[in-house]
Amino acid sequence: MSRDKHKLLRVDPERLWRRHIDMSKLGSTDRGGVNRAALTIPDVELHLELASWARERNFEVEIDDYGNQFMRRAGSEPQCHALVSGSHSDTQPTGGRFDGISGVLAAMEALEVIDDAQICTRHPIEVVVWNNEEGTRFSPSDMGSAVYVGQTPIERMLAATDDEGVSMAIAVNTLRASIDWAIERQLGTPISAYLELHIEQGPILENENIDIGIVTGIQGTRKFEVRITGEEAHAGTTPESNRQDAFMDAVKVVNALQEIFFDPEDKVRFTIGRFEVSPGSLAVVPGHVLFTIDFRHPENTVLQILGDQIAEVCKKTATRCTTQVVETRSAPSTLFGNVVQEVIEECAKQRTYSFKYLPSGAGHDARYMNSFCPTGMVFVPCRKGISHNEKEYASPDSLAKGAQVVVDSLLMLDGLI
Amino acid sequence: MSRDKHKLLRVDPERLWRRHIDMSKLGSTDRGGVNRAALTIPDVELHLELASWARERNFEVEIDDYGNQFMRRAGSEPQCHALVSGSHSDTQPTGGRFDGISGVLAAMEALEVIDDAQICTRHPIEVVVWNNEEGTRFSPSDMGSAVYVGQTPIERMLAATDDEGVSMAIAVNTLRASIDWAIERQLGTPISAYLELHIEQGPILENENIDIGIVTGIQGTRKFEVRITGEEAHAGTTPESNRQDAFMDAVKVVNALQEIFFDPEDKVRFTIGRFEVSPGSLAVVPGHVLFTIDFRHPENTVLQILGDQIAEVCKKTATRCTTQVVETRSAPSTLFGNVVQEVIEECAKQRTYSFKYLPSGAGHDARYMNSFCPTGMVFVPCRKGISHNEKEYASPDSLAKGAQVVVDSLLMLDGLI
Repeated sequence: MSRDKHKLLRVDPERLWRRHIDMSKLGSTDRGGVNRAALTIPDVELHLELASWARERNFEVEIDDYGNQFMRRAGSEPQCHALVSGSHSDTQPTGGRFDGISGVLAAMEALEVIDDAQICTRHPIEVVVWNNEEGTRFSPSDMGSAVYVGQTPIERMLAATDDEGVSMAIAVNTLRASIDWAIERQLGTPISAYLELHIEQGPILENENIDIGIVTGIQGTRKFEVRITGEEAHAGTTPESNRQDAFMDAVKVVNALQEIFFDPEDKVRFTIGRFEVSPGSLAVVPGHVLFTIDFRHPENTVLQILGDQIAEVCKKTATRCTTQVVETRSAPSTLFGNVVQEVIEECAKQRTYSFKYLPSGAGHDARYMNSFCPTGMVFVPCRKGISHNEKEYASPDSLAKGAQVVVDSLLMLDGLI
Repeated sequence: MSRDKHKLLRVDPERLWRRHIDMSKLGSTDRGGVNRAALTIPDVELHLELASWARERNFEVEIDDYGNQFMRRAGSEPQCHALVSGSHSDTQPTGGRFDGISGVLAAMEALEVIDDAQICTRHPIEVVVWNNEEGTRFSPSDMGSAVYVGQTPIERMLAATDDEGVSMAIAVNTLRASIDWAIERQLGTPISAYLELHIEQGPILENENIDIGIVTGIQGTRKFEVRITGEEAHAGTTPESNRQDAFMDAVKVVNALQEIFFDPEDKVRFTIGRFEVSPGSLAVVPGHVLFTIDFRHPENTVLQILGDQIAEVCKKTATRCTTQVVETRSAPSTLFGNVVQEVIEECAKQRTYSFKYLPSGAGHDARYMNSFCPTGMVFVPCRKGISHNEKEYASPDSLAKGAQVVVDSLLMLDGLI
């Protein structure tokens, strides 16, 4: 195939947009967003829908032991491992219509455009739907890719349970039962290159009116759970001086943490997203608080120095209660290699799309893939950088340009790798 | 009947204790406490158990439209309205084995002791179980007595719903269906006097080794709900300066409130018992916080001055989010009249029990009864003053002495009123 023929391949912006809208109906919320936790009924429906599209075109559908789903268009050379593109389908509880699913739909669009043009690629090309990227139903996040590449043992991750006590193992069985004709995928099956399209989830591309973000890497993150234990007491009868109020001590701890995490450069990302007070009754002095810390920074030294202070600050500040700090996750900053970044730049140039190199503030499955094969990410602008929010929005034009770069990059990688 | 014959009446400490233990099995928690929300299955079971005991002795059982349950031993003089004693049977989510139920069981003990002695009283004597005193399943609290005496319209209170959307009206129907032979009690049926035994829920009686607390009144209370609304955002990508973090603004508000409610004399009771962060996900900047304020003080001027500042402090302090403050309840400080207090003192003296006059830090149904008929309360010591807690404890001896004073006081009131 010549380069020129590839240039004639065009994604179908209308089909791509319609599919975003259709998919957003699976788990849609009253306020226009999506609540589609990993392998809940709407998420399994979505997997089934994708698998059905694949089947219509005789693409193979594979599911691995962790519930990652692959849809494969065959290649001509048996020794070539697949070029893989995709993202995730699960969302935050009050998530939007684009985070994750846009990368899956862009990859599916690529397979269909290539198939319609009857292009014979050397490598198989696959769409992947990583399981449980958000990590809100089953903790921690990004485990689909982590387990696939062997960075995290699968047994512990399959044993993880949701709030109702349902294990990931059972959830994966539900998926398998719904697509019982899918082929078994071996974890760790080699991949030639991985390319993930995602909305930026930040304001830079929109502000600078840029079509394509070429992602240089992913900032590191450390996550913690803090438990503060005091003593429940009657709100009407217990003098302040006699209280071991877990809530009030937790507030003092939060004040102290805010102080050490304050950053005049505003590069530190410090978030307390979950904060649960027990027993949570109007007239009872709280006996227990559990809260989470999500801390991210592009520099590994900052991650280490600030993160290592948390336990000590909690202990020193909670004067009446006991504290317990557990680090639930740690991922250092990741830099992607040059190969895929250069391919993305070349493809953006060929289409005369504007582009910019930038790091990712959010974590993605590409973090783990980067340790496994040449990896890159394409960002597309999203309105005001709003994400993990029901108001999340990316325009049909931005999504189409991003998908076009995915098609072109996969074909260029097919000739290159 | 002569006073001397009355003095021979003795409560049965062993039966009284056994019943405390038996009742604590209805809604028992793993940590030795009780979780028995108003008119849940264990609470309805408890009502049925009490009704069955009453039926065995041919006491009448009455239930009113709000689900308050009365068990009546008849009197000899038709023009005499009932002397009523009792309390409530519902508990906090992590409540103890004595709060509420002790007053019900003391009153039941009184009826049985008087019945066993075949004493013919002028007034009917009744045990009451007020519905929904704690107010944790249906808000607000103490509505059983408030509705009974006509201080709160019943329609609104029956429409109150729990977290599952079940209305109080439906819950009351469940109770009625379980005791379908109970007689209909008219709300507002006159009562000659009301006497409530309760654990102190504070440390004074235990610290001073006193048997009987004679309650002088109930401190006033104001309760508020504060809502703080910001904007959900991605924890990894959103710079601090771009955030409208409802949690962080709520923490600032709590700091400011703590400052204005600080009281060097430690008489102010200021509690934030419920504090709910939404969406409550590790990687999402919170968009919404709801918290409650429970504020109590013996002086009505302090209640007014401090309580009236809350809305303004919230508005001024939450710089990035909007705030909404709703006062959900307000009850001024209440002083009980002399009649019942003097009767309690006289009865304690006759038994040579030590006694002390003291105000109640907690709210009780006696607050509303005081506007309706001569009212008083007997406090018994509880260990370390711990209440609204699974560790709550009152000794068999303390409970028996308290119940003895209830028996004696009811009989003295029968001759007096």
